[in-house]
Amino acid sequence: MIFKQYLSAGLAHFSYMIADGGQATVIDPRRDIDCYLQDAAEGGFHISYVLETHRNEDYVIGSSELEEATGAHIFHADDQWDYAYGESVRDGQEWRVGRLLIRAMHTPGHTPGSMSYLLHDPDRHPWALFSGDTLFSGDVGRVDLLGEAHLEEMAGLLFDSLFDKILPLGDEILLCPAHGAGSVCGSGIAERTWTTIGLERRHNPKLQVKSKAEFIALHAMMLKRPPYFRMMEGLNLSGAPLLGRLPQLKPFMPDAFEISAQSAQVIDVRDPISFGKAHVPGSLSILADALASFAGWFVDYEDPILFVCEPLMIPEITRVMVRLGFDALSGYLSGGMVGWAKAGKPLASLQNLTVEEFCHVLQSVEPKTVLDVRNEDEVKAKGLKTVRQIALTKLLDHLDEIPRDQPIYTLCPSGNRSMLAASLLKRAGWTDVSTLIGGLSAWKAYGCDFDL
Amino acid sequence: MIFKQYLSAGLAHFSYMIADGGQATVIDPRRDIDCYLQDAAEGGFHISYVLETHRNEDYVIGSSELEEATGAHIFHADDQWDYAYGESVRDGQEWRVGRLLIRAMHTPGHTPGSMSYLLHDPDRHPWALFSGDTLFSGDVGRVDLLGEAHLEEMAGLLFDSLFDKILPLGDEILLCPAHGAGSVCGSGIAERTWTTIGLERRHNPKLQVKSKAEFIALHAMMLKRPPYFRMMEGLNLSGAPLLGRLPQLKPFMPDAFEISAQSAQVIDVRDPISFGKAHVPGSLSILADALASFAGWFVDYEDPILFVCEPLMIPEITRVMVRLGFDALSGYLSGGMVGWAKAGKPLASLQNLTVEEFCHVLQSVEPKTVLDVRNEDEVKAKGLKTVRQIALTKLLDHLDEIPRDQPIYTLCPSGNRSMLAASLLKRAGWTDVSTLIGGLSAWKAYGCDFDL
Amino acid sequence: MIFKQYLSAGLAHFSYMIADGGQATVIDPRRDIDCYLQDAAEGGFHISYVLETHRNEDYVIGSSELEEATGAHIFHADDQWDYAYGESVRDGQEWRVGRLLIRAMHTPGHTPGSMSYLLHDPDRHPWALFSGDTLFSGDVGRVDLLGEAHLEEMAGLLFDSLFDKILPLGDEILLCPAHGAGSVCGSGIAERTWTTIGLERRHNPKLQVKSKAEFIALHAMMLKRPPYFRMMEGLNLSGAPLLGRLPQLKPFMPDAFEISAQSAQVIDVRDPISFGKAHVPGSLSILADALASFAGWFVDYEDPILFVCEPLMIPEITRVMVRLGFDALSGYLSGGMVGWAKAGKPLASLQNLTVEEFCHVLQSVEPKTVLDVRNEDEVKAKGLKTVRQIALTKLLDHLDEIPRDQPIYTLCPSGNRSMLAASLLKRAGWTDVSTLIGGLSAWKAYGCDFDL
Amino acid sequence: MIFKQYLSAGLAHFSYMIADGGQATVIDPRRDIDCYLQDAAEGGFHISYVLETHRNEDYVIGSSELEEATGAHIFHADDQWDYAYGESVRDGQEWRVGRLLIRAMHTPGHTPGSMSYLLHDPDRHPWALFSGDTLFSGDVGRVDLLGEAHLEEMAGLLFDSLFDKILPLGDEILLCPAHGAGSVCGSGIAERTWTTIGLERRHNPKLQVKSKAEFIALHAMMLKRPPYFRMMEGLNLSGAPLLGRLPQLKPFMPDAFEISAQSAQVIDVRDPISFGKAHVPGSLSILADALASFAGWFVDYEDPILFVCEPLMIPEITRVMVRLGFDALSGYLSGGMVGWAKAGKPLASLQNLTVEEFCHVLQSVEPKTVLDVRNEDEVKAKGLKTVRQIALTKLLDHLDEIPRDQPIYTLCPSGNRSMLAASLLKRAGWTDVSTLIGGLSAWKAYGCDFDL
Repeated sequence: MIFKQYLSAGLAHFSYMIADGGQATVIDPRRDIDCYLQDAAEGGFHISYVLETHRNEDYVIGSSELEEATGAHIFHADDQWDYAYGESVRDGQEWRVGRLLIRAMHTPGHTPGSMSYLLHDPDRHPWALFSGDTLFSGDVGRVDLLGEAHLEEMAGLLFDSLFDKILPLGDEILLCPAHGAGSVCGSGIAERTWTTIGLERRHNPKLQVKSKAEFIALHAMMLKRPPYFRMMEGLNLSGAPLLGRLPQLKPFMPDAFEISAQSAQVIDVRDPISFGKAHVPGSLSILADALASFAGWFVDYEDPILFVCEPLMIPEITRVMVRLGFDALSGYLSGGMVGWAKAGKPLASLQNLTVEEFCHVLQSVEPKTVLDVRNEDEVKAKGLKTVRQIALTKLLDHLDEIPRDQPIYTLCPSGNRSMLAASLLKRAGWTDVSTLIGGLSAWKAYGCDFDL
Repeated sequence: MIFKQYLSAGLAHFSYMIADGGQATVIDPRRDIDCYLQDAAEGGFHISYVLETHRNEDYVIGSSELEEATGAHIFHADDQWDYAYGESVRDGQEWRVGRLLIRAMHTPGHTPGSMSYLLHDPDRHPWALFSGDTLFSGDVGRVDLLGEAHLEEMAGLLFDSLFDKILPLGDEILLCPAHGAGSVCGSGIAERTWTTIGLERRHNPKLQVKSKAEFIALHAMMLKRPPYFRMMEGLNLSGAPLLGRLPQLKPFMPDAFEISAQSAQVIDVRDPISFGKAHVPGSLSILADALASFAGWFVDYEDPILFVCEPLMIPEITRVMVRLGFDALSGYLSGGMVGWAKAGKPLASLQNLTVEEFCHVLQSVEPKTVLDVRNEDEVKAKGLKTVRQIALTKLLDHLDEIPRDQPIYTLCPSGNRSMLAASLLKRAGWTDVSTLIGGLSAWKAYGCDFDL
Repeated sequence: MIFKQYLSAGLAHFSYMIADGGQATVIDPRRDIDCYLQDAAEGGFHISYVLETHRNEDYVIGSSELEEATGAHIFHADDQWDYAYGESVRDGQEWRVGRLLIRAMHTPGHTPGSMSYLLHDPDRHPWALFSGDTLFSGDVGRVDLLGEAHLEEMAGLLFDSLFDKILPLGDEILLCPAHGAGSVCGSGIAERTWTTIGLERRHNPKLQVKSKAEFIALHAMMLKRPPYFRMMEGLNLSGAPLLGRLPQLKPFMPDAFEISAQSAQVIDVRDPISFGKAHVPGSLSILADALASFAGWFVDYEDPILFVCEPLMIPEITRVMVRLGFDALSGYLSGGMVGWAKAGKPLASLQNLTVEEFCHVLQSVEPKTVLDVRNEDEVKAKGLKTVRQIALTKLLDHLDEIPRDQPIYTLCPSGNRSMLAASLLKRAGWTDVSTLIGGLSAWKAYGCDFDL
Repeated sequence: MIFKQYLSAGLAHFSYMIADGGQATVIDPRRDIDCYLQDAAEGGFHISYVLETHRNEDYVIGSSELEEATGAHIFHADDQWDYAYGESVRDGQEWRVGRLLIRAMHTPGHTPGSMSYLLHDPDRHPWALFSGDTLFSGDVGRVDLLGEAHLEEMAGLLFDSLFDKILPLGDEILLCPAHGAGSVCGSGIAERTWTTIGLERRHNPKLQVKSKAEFIALHAMMLKRPPYFRMMEGLNLSGAPLLGRLPQLKPFMPDAFEISAQSAQVIDVRDPISFGKAHVPGSLSILADALASFAGWFVDYEDPILFVCEPLMIPEITRVMVRLGFDALSGYLSGGMVGWAKAGKPLASLQNLTVEEFCHVLQSVEPKTVLDVRNEDEVKAKGLKTVRQIALTKLLDHLDEIPRDQPIYTLCPSGNRSMLAASLLKRAGWTDVSTLIGGLSAWKAYGCDFDL
C-alpha cells in the first residue's frame, strides 16, 4: 500500500497518491508527473484514477498529462464550469482502490463544486480526508474567487461544509489539504505538514467562531488575486498542453543572450546581493525560492523567458515555471554574470546598502522616498514619515504615486521583495533606486537608532 | 520543515526524521543511514539528536552509525540495561528542534524503559506521538520479552501507559509507531501507514477492553521469539559495528562459488518455482521478500553467506541483511543458475507439484506425510488426516516427528514458506520432499475435490 | 568538452555526443534520448546538430525525438532515399562544435549514401572518425542490404571507402563505429569498445586482404536479415512516432492478465529454467538479455505485448523494445508466476532436462528428434545421427521438417535459444518438446559419454 | 567488458576501470570511490586489482579505500620509497582480467619508479597504454619533483621512456594518461580527452625534438610546486585515512557560523561579483571551479574549514576537498549571505569595478598599484608602468613588495584569481583593495583606450 504526500515546493501544493492491490489514485496531481509515474512503477501500481478537488486557480493541474501517460480516468469537481476533459464527480460517488474505498463529499465554499474525498482503510473505517482548498492546516479556503457579489454566499457555504460535513467526521481523521504554509491560497496556513480534523477543530483560528454569522464576518473578504489565476483557470478547464518531458533550457553564450534578450523577459533568480552589484540591463530580480510566488504576478505568458541563474538550479526552476503554465521557457545565460562581464557586455547595478549606510541616508535631509513593499498585514509598527507603503503586488498599479525626481529606497523583511520592486522600478524608467541588504531583519538585528 | 516517515521494507520498520530551523532529529534510525543523511543534506539540516524509543530486539538500530557520520547526540531509553553508547533519556526531558519541541514520556510495557516522544508544532500544540513499540496501528506492543515470569506485570504496565498516558493525549494526535503491517513485533498490525490516537482508540482491537484485567488476560502471552532477537539486543546495547558504506557483494564464477559454498551458507532468494526446478545443492530457499522475516530464524551469524539471486536485487538484499546485523555477506553466484548449469555443476531439485498433480498424490494410497507449515493461528479449517501441522519456525525443533521413510509434501498459503521448509528438510537429510506450486491459494482457486 | 560514447546494450549500438563551447552534436542517437538530454543539461550544452551515418536498419534512430526536444538540426545520409525529416549531408560538409570541427566523408558500401564524420580537435588535427556501419572493431559493414544483385557492387564500394578513404587517415585516428560486439550488424565485431584505425588496419580480419577482388570474394555475401529490418528502415525514413516519455507498463493482476493475453503476445523474459518449470500457456521464452536479438524475429508489431518478468527489469525491457520500435507495450503480470499459480491459473511447462537425464534419452531407442538450433557457423563438430540442425531464426520457415509424432529435444549452447525454439514449437502445436538445462556448455562441462 | 575513463573534475585527473569475466582492475583510483563500486556492482564485477602508475603528488589516491571496500590487491610503483600498504610492481609483471592481459612497463622520468600499464585485448593484441604522468595528451610529465639537482637526470630518463619504450608501441595504441587539460601536472595538456600514441607522436609539442639533448634542454626545468604536494606525497605512501562515506557538511546558522569562524578558515566559493559586494569578514574568495587548483595553495590542513556557497554545490565541493586530503571540513553558512545580513552580521566588501570605472582610475594621477596576478607565462604584452606582476601563487611570498599606503587594483583574465588575490591582501591587512569585474577579458572586449 502507498499513501504518499507530494510537496510541490514554492507553490506549497500537496498532491497525494494512494495505492493498493495494483491500483493507484492520484488526488490533484501537479503538471510534472514523473514523481507519480516513478512511484507507481516501483510499487507495481497502475494509476487508474485522478481525482480533482476543484477547478484550481493557482497552478496547472496534471490530470490530462497523467491520463495521457497512463490511461487514468479523470474525475473533476466544479461541473458548473465547462470542462474539456474527464468526467464530473457526483456527491457520494465511490471508487475502489484495491481494498481501499474513496467517497466523494460535496464541500462547496472555496468554489461552488469543491469536492472532498474521504478515504477508508482496508477495514472500511473512515481514515483520511482529502480536503482540497476547503480546509487547510491553520486556515480555510478563500471565498472570493467568484467576486465580491458572492462573498457572503460562498462564506456561508464554506461554513456549512466545514461545520456540518467535515468536522463531524471526527477528530481522529487525518486531514490532507491541497496546500501548506506559503501558498497564495491561504495566508494563515500552518506548518503542520500532516494534520487531523481534531487538530484543526482545536487550533485552526478560522474555526474558533461562535456562529455562522461570525464566520462570515471574519472570512468574507476579497484577497489579492494574482493576474495569472485567470490563465490557470482557463488551462484547468481546457486541459493544459501536454508536456511529455520537461522542457530543456538552452544555454546562451553572451552574444546570443544579448540578442535574444531584446525580445524576451530576463529573470534573474540570484540573491539580491549579487543582483544589485551587477545584472543584465532590464532584468527582473526574482529569487529562485520566490519564483512560484511572484512569476504569476510579473512574468508575461507570451514573451520568451530567459534566466540568469546558477546552472544547478535549472531543473527546479523549470519545474516551478511549468507548474505555473509558463511554457515559453527559452534558456539561460551560459557562464553567468562573470561570463557576461568577460564578454564586455553592459552591466547594470542597483545600489544595495548596508544598514549602516542606510542609516546615514535616513539622517540626511535630502528629499527621498523610502518605499515599504510589504503587504498591508505585515506592516504593524508605525513607520517614519519618510516611509510610504505600497505592497509589492500592487506596485505596478501605483507607479504614478512614486516620485521620479528623488532617490527611492525600497524595503522589505529580507531584501528579496524590495529588490524585485527596485528592478521593476528600474525597468519602468526610474534611475535612482536602492535597497537595503538583509532588509528590515538586518535593520532590527543591527540596531540602528531610527525605528521603522 | 521536514516530518518524514521512512519505511524499511521487509522489517516493516518505521523511523522518522523531523527537522526545522537547520536542526534535525531522527527517531529509531535504521542501520543503513544514507536516507537520513541525504534528506538532511538536501534540506540543509544538521542531525543533532537521535532518539531511541526502546532497546530494539528485531533490527540493528543505526544510532551509532548516525553519531559517527554527523556527531549527533544519542538518547536511549531502557537505561535499566547497560548501554555502551549515548545518554539515558529522562521522563519529561525536552529537546528543541528549531521551533518544534519534543518531550519524552515514559510508556513502559513493551520494555521496562520504553519511551514515547511527543512532538509539538511551532505553536507548541501537541501534534504527533512517536510511540515506538508501545502502540501500533491495530495492535499494541508484545509484553513477553522479559519472559513468562513478567508477562502480567509488563501487560499491566502497558495498559497503564496506553490508557493513562497515551489515549488521554487526544484523538487528534498523529500516532507514529515504529512498525507497520508485517512486522514480527505485532501480528495484528493494521495497514494504516499513518494513523491517529483517535483511530486507534476506536478501531484498535487491543484497546477495546473493559478493564485492565481483561487487557492482561487478552494480551499477556508468550509469542514466537526468533533466535536472532538475542543478537539484536546485544548489538543494540553495545552499538553495532560501524558500516561506513554498505558491503559490496562479490560476484563468484561457478568454480569459485562451488569452493566458497563448502564453508558458507547458500541462500537462494528466487521464487520457489525456479528454486524447485534447479538449485545449488544444500541451498536454502528464502524468497527475497521474506528475507527480513526468516533470515533471523534460519541463517547463522558466523558463517559466510552466499546468495543465488537476480543481480538487480542485490542492493535491497544487502540492506535487509545489514539491518538484521548479518555482516558476513560474501557474494553471489555470477551468471545465476543457467551459468551454474553451463559450467556443468550439479543441480539439485525439489518436486514442485501443480494442484492437479497434488490431487493425484492425495488420492493415492501410498504412505505419505503432508506437512502444513503455517502458524497455528493461520490454521483454521479442519484438515485431512494426512495433514500434520508444524509451523515453519518450529520445524527444526520437531524434525524427529517427521518420518524419513515416506514422501513429504509441504504446504503453506503461497508455496514460499513450504519451499523454505522443504529446503530445510533436504539439508537435514530428507530425500523425497515436494511442495505445491502456488500453495493453498492455488488449491482453493483451482477447486480440487479434496479439502484441506 | 564532452566526447562520450553511449552503449545501448542488447543492440550493441554505440552513439556519441561531442560538445564544446556550449554546443553539442550527437551522432546516431538512440530513440530513448534522456541520456543525451541529461548530459547536455549537466554540461551546459545545447544539442545543435544530429548527424546520421546512414539509414539504419536495426534500430529506430532518435533524431526526430532529439529535434523535438531541443530544436537540433538533423543531417541524414543516404539521400538517395526519400526522408520525411532533416536535411541531406553533402560530402565534405563541415560543422563547428565550439572549437571542434566535423567534416563529412562519403564512405559508401554498407548503404549507398553512408557517411563517416571526421572530428578534428581544438588544434584542427584530425582526431576521431565516426564510421557508422562502414568499419567496426574487428569487422566491416554488411553489404547485402540492397539484395543479392548488388552484392559485388556494394562490396567494391566498401573496399574503396575502407582502403582509399579511411585507412589513409592514419593509424593514430580514433575509430568510433556504430556497433560493438553482439550486434546483428556484424558477426565478427571484436570486443574493443574503443579502437583506432591502426588497430583495425593491423588486426581486423576483413582488412587483411591482398586485393579488392579478394575482399569482394570474401565479403560479398547475403546474411541473415531479421524481418523487423524492413520496419526499421521505414521508420527511419519517415521519422518514428515521438515518445515524449517512455511508455509505462501496466501491472495486470492474474485475472486481467488472462483476459488481455487472449489478444496479446506474452513474452516471458525469465531464465529458461524457470520458464520450463511453469509458464503462462502460449507464452514465448525470450531471455531479457536476448530481447534485442530476437524480438525483431519473433514478436509482432501490431498485437499488444505482455511480459512475464521480474518487475525490476521493466525499465530496461521497455527501453530495448522502444529502441526496436515496439510501441504496443501493454503491461506485465503482477505477482509473477507464483501469483499466477496462487490465482489458480493454468500452468504450462516444458521438460527441461539435466545432462544426466538427457544422456538417458539419447541412449534410449525411442524415436526422437534432437534439434540443434545454433547458426550454421556455430556448428563445427560432426553430430550424432539423431541431431538435426535448423538455426533458430529459420525455424518458423522449416516447421514442416520437424516430426510431430516424436519427442523433440532442442539444443543450443546455453539453453536459452533452445527454450525459445521449444516455446515456438509449443505455440505451433507440438506437445512433446524438451530442452537441455545449460545446453551444450553443460553437456561439455559434464562430460557425457556421447558426443554432439 | 568495461573500459571506462573517470574524470575527476577540478583536478583534471583521469582514472580507469577495465573489467572482463567478472574481474575488474582500477588504475590510479581517486579517493571518493563510489563511482568504481557502483559500476562494478552494476556490471557484476569484483574489483580484484588496483594499479598505481606512480606515487602521486597532486591528489590523494583511493587505493586503500578500495582495498578496504572490496579486498582488492594493491600494486604500487615507485618502490624506492617506503610504502605502508600494497605490494611493489615489477617491470614486466602481468595480470589477467578475464580475457584481458595487463603488463607493467617501467617508464621512469616523472618519478624514478613510474610504471605504465599496457592493456591487451581479448586476442592478446596490445590495445591501450595507461601512461600515468609520463605522457599526456599534448604534454609530458614534469621532471622536477626530486629537486633541481636531479632535473637533467630525470629528463633524460623520461626521454628514454618516451622514445625507447612508449612510442615504439605503435601509433595505433590508445593512450590513457592520468591527467587532462587543466591539471597542475602539465601546463600544456591538450583537450583531447581520448588520444593515441600516434596522435601524440605527431602533435605533442614536447615530442617534436631532434635529440635527447634538445629534449632535456627544453624540459628540464623547475615548475611551480603547490605546498600541498608534500602532504599528498606523505598520504600516498602511508595510505590516507579511510573515509567510508563522504563527510557531511554541517549547516551553521549565522550566530553559530560567526562563532565557529573565529577558529576556522572561511572559504567563499561564490563568484567574485557576489563576493566583492558582500562577504563574511576574513573569508577567502576561491571560485568553486577553482577550488581544486587553489585550495592546495591557500587552505591550511589543520584548521577547520567553513564554506559560503550555494547549498546545491556542497556535494561537489566536498568531493574536491576530500580528493585533496582536506578532511577538516566543518560546514557551511545556512541561509547564505542574505541570511547573514538579515541576522545583522557584519558585511565586508571589496570594490569591484566595471571596466569604465577602472578606466577612470587609470586616468587619475593618484598613486596606486595595479597588480597583475597572472602567471609569468600568461603575461605576454608589455604593460603599463603602473602594472606590477606577481603570480597569484607567489603573492604571499612577496607581500613586502606591495605598498600599504595606496589603493591596490588586482587584475587577472576573468576577475576570479584577482579576487582571490584581493581577499588574501584583505586578510593580510590591506584595506583599500579593488578588482576589475570580468578581468582582462572584459577589458579587451570593452575596448578601453588604455592598453594593459
